[in-house]
Amino acid sequence: MLIVQKYGGTSVGSIERIKNVAKRVASYFDKGHKLVVVVSAMAGQTDRLIALAHEVTDDPDPREMDALLATGEQASAALLAMALKAMGYPATSLVAFQARILTDDAHGRARIDEIDSSRLQKELDEGKIVIVAGFQGINSQGNITTLGRGGSDTTAVALAAALKADVCEIFTDVEGVFTADPRVCPQAKKIDRISYDEMMELASLGAKVLQIRSVEFAKKYKVPVHVRSSFNEKEGTMVVEADAEMEKIVVRAVAHDKNQARITIRGVVDRPGIAAQIFDPIGQAGIIVDMIIQNTSEDGITDITFTVPKGDFKKAFNIAKEAANKIGAERVLGDEHIGKVSIIGVGMCSHSGVAAKMFKVLAQAGINILMISTSEIKISCVVDEKEVERAVRVLHEAFIEEG
Amino acid sequence: MLIVQKYGGTSVGSIERIKNVAKRVASYFDKGHKLVVVVSAMAGQTDRLIALAHEVTDDPDPREMDALLATGEQASAALLAMALKAMGYPATSLVAFQARILTDDAHGRARIDEIDSSRLQKELDEGKIVIVAGFQGINSQGNITTLGRGGSDTTAVALAAALKADVCEIFTDVEGVFTADPRVCPQAKKIDRISYDEMMELASLGAKVLQIRSVEFAKKYKVPVHVRSSFNEKEGTMVVEADAEMEKIVVRAVAHDKNQARITIRGVVDRPGIAAQIFDPIGQAGIIVDMIIQNTSEDGITDITFTVPKGDFKKAFNIAKEAANKIGAERVLGDEHIGKVSIIGVGMCSHSGVAAKMFKVLAQAGINILMISTSEIKISCVVDEKEVERAVRVLHEAFIEEG
Repeated sequence: MLIVQKYGGTSVGSIERIKNVAKRVASYFDKGHKLVVVVSAMAGQTDRLIALAHEVTDDPDPREMDALLATGEQASAALLAMALKAMGYPATSLVAFQARILTDDAHGRARIDEIDSSRLQKELDEGKIVIVAGFQGINSQGNITTLGRGGSDTTAVALAAALKADVCEIFTDVEGVFTADPRVCPQAKKIDRISYDEMMELASLGAKVLQIRSVEFAKKYKVPVHVRSSFNEKEGTMVVEADAEMEKIVVRAVAHDKNQARITIRGVVDRPGIAAQIFDPIGQAGIIVDMIIQNTSEDGITDITFTVPKGDFKKAFNIAKEAANKIGAERVLGDEHIGKVSIIGVGMCSHSGVAAKMFKVLAQAGINILMISTSEIKISCVVDEKEVERAVRVLHEAFIEEG
Repeated sequence: MLIVQKYGGTSVGSIERIKNVAKRVASYFDKGHKLVVVVSAMAGQTDRLIALAHEVTDDPDPREMDALLATGEQASAALLAMALKAMGYPATSLVAFQARILTDDAHGRARIDEIDSSRLQKELDEGKIVIVAGFQGINSQGNITTLGRGGSDTTAVALAAALKADVCEIFTDVEGVFTADPRVCPQAKKIDRISYDEMMELASLGAKVLQIRSVEFAKKYKVPVHVRSSFNEKEGTMVVEADAEMEKIVVRAVAHDKNQARITIRGVVDRPGIAAQIFDPIGQAGIIVDMIIQNTSEDGITDITFTVPKGDFKKAFNIAKEAANKIGAERVLGDEHIGKVSIIGVGMCSHSGVAAKMFKVLAQAGINILMISTSEIKISCVVDEKEVERAVRVLHEAFIEEG
């Protein structure tokens, strides 16, 4: 089999751990597999480099920041190749310009456009274990780019797609994807198989196990992804295409995200273009708006409520106040103490009454719903921050333990 | 003017110092110069990376070692470019694959074969200050190579040659090249102008101010090199082609090297091929032999004496004993407590009696000469290690202060 493996920063967090990764990689090689191994920077190294840059200036140039950060993965890739060679295995490390990982120009959050796999293929054909520095690429001018936090997941999946690998294994510090966060919900259990769409919803809803772009990539190129622990041999979670069997399960997982804040603009005159006047400046400030709710207007006056990440609350609130002034709205209200709880499942679209059951379960627990948003395979409710964890537990009980 | 500058590890040893370098570079830019700036890794970083590699294995793979070490210069180049951009200057950092510094395959001590300066020229034409990561190159297969300790000097001179720069300024932690090591000889003074050949002898005789290859490069391409302090504005030493004026000075500098050991093979039958049988295995062990002396034979029996770096003494001694056995030599003697003192000057070839004067000065000081070797512009004497520093002072007094 041709296997692409990815080891995160914790898995290569010390020389001792790098040696353990080398042993694991070697054991796969001994079984006759062809291997491409993607590594993150050693845990903490990226933060150290960022701190160094911030000693230079408050606002480091993004191109230079990428050149700086890319050294972290280059170092861990070289160290892992060194460890394997010292064990007598034919390994070679490659950075982005060598592995020909070509991206767009968006420094700090670049997207992979293309991988020219000829060099990779040549090394594999020569019997080498190829170690690739994750998280990085080069753009069309040959500048070094980085893919954003969690970008090594995307490197791994993109390489697996380019090389038509049999599987992409993401080794991490958890045993797989869980039905809920086990720290919040002790009844949570590991999911054996999850669909790309469910995984994408989970990633976008705050589960940090995979970078969302890596799942998009996996779905687009149908790369089977295996999320598993780097500290034991247990099978983890397979992320694959949805099938009939999967759709029998209505709710696959309960997700939550406490990193939310809410802003309401009261007394907005309901005429065309109003929403754009509010959300244009917020988008331009680089703030990602999650839910937006606009009630039907009464007498041509309406309220608009939206949620943003907690860290962007102050900035968004000020922009909203300015916009409210311009459009002659009544006033702006904010609430930093909210959270979001969601249920996800591909089976949802073929089962009715799921939303009604969710609202009933929350109501029976005395939890007030502040906002609701739905997609084909997900229902999210905004609730008071204090109620988020209890909401996760009652929903998990109702939909997963009993459902 | 087009100026290539190089800042060593001490000069970029902290963020504070990187900011100071940025200010100096900016002041040159403000005067209208075009600038290419080569940087070493932050002081200590290369040693830290080497230590990390040695935690992985006693004998790290050279290709991976180079990939690991190259991160040091990549980081300092990015940080310096960041600092300049934060000050509002148009800077951009380039690593070897971007600056197209092409080397041979000798990992850890690669030689620059060629520089394709088109990208560099393009950035300069766009008005950029180009920061280049020193010490590194890529070979014809696109692998990362490094040029050996002091390699950033060679990067700078090679770039200056490729771009036909007006001058290559080497900023370092000393004020220039001195007539002797000031720590040993308080009377030593800064040399204003020195010839390439003299500088090459000095570098090969243990003066650490410039990597010898950088001087070879400078001589070959006639690059004027200015060695000066990064901590003040004083003029340093210009390394240039010898001219008539220079040849008037008989002795330019006194050099010394305590890092020497001596091995003598006694009772060697003097027949063709004997020397090869001794020095072949020593060369194959990667040991660099400095002086070799073979006396005229008496009755077909001779002694062979040679010097090696102290660190290689034990290894060389064992190889010599093995070789002595094979060729039926009498015995092998070793002495780790020797040193070498040398006088250098292009004027030497047109002045007679220099050697005689050197031997007389040493004799008058009661210093015994153990070995002698000469070139057109240098005379070296091996003396007892305890006498090295005193020999430097008496030679400096006789040839430079009085001469």
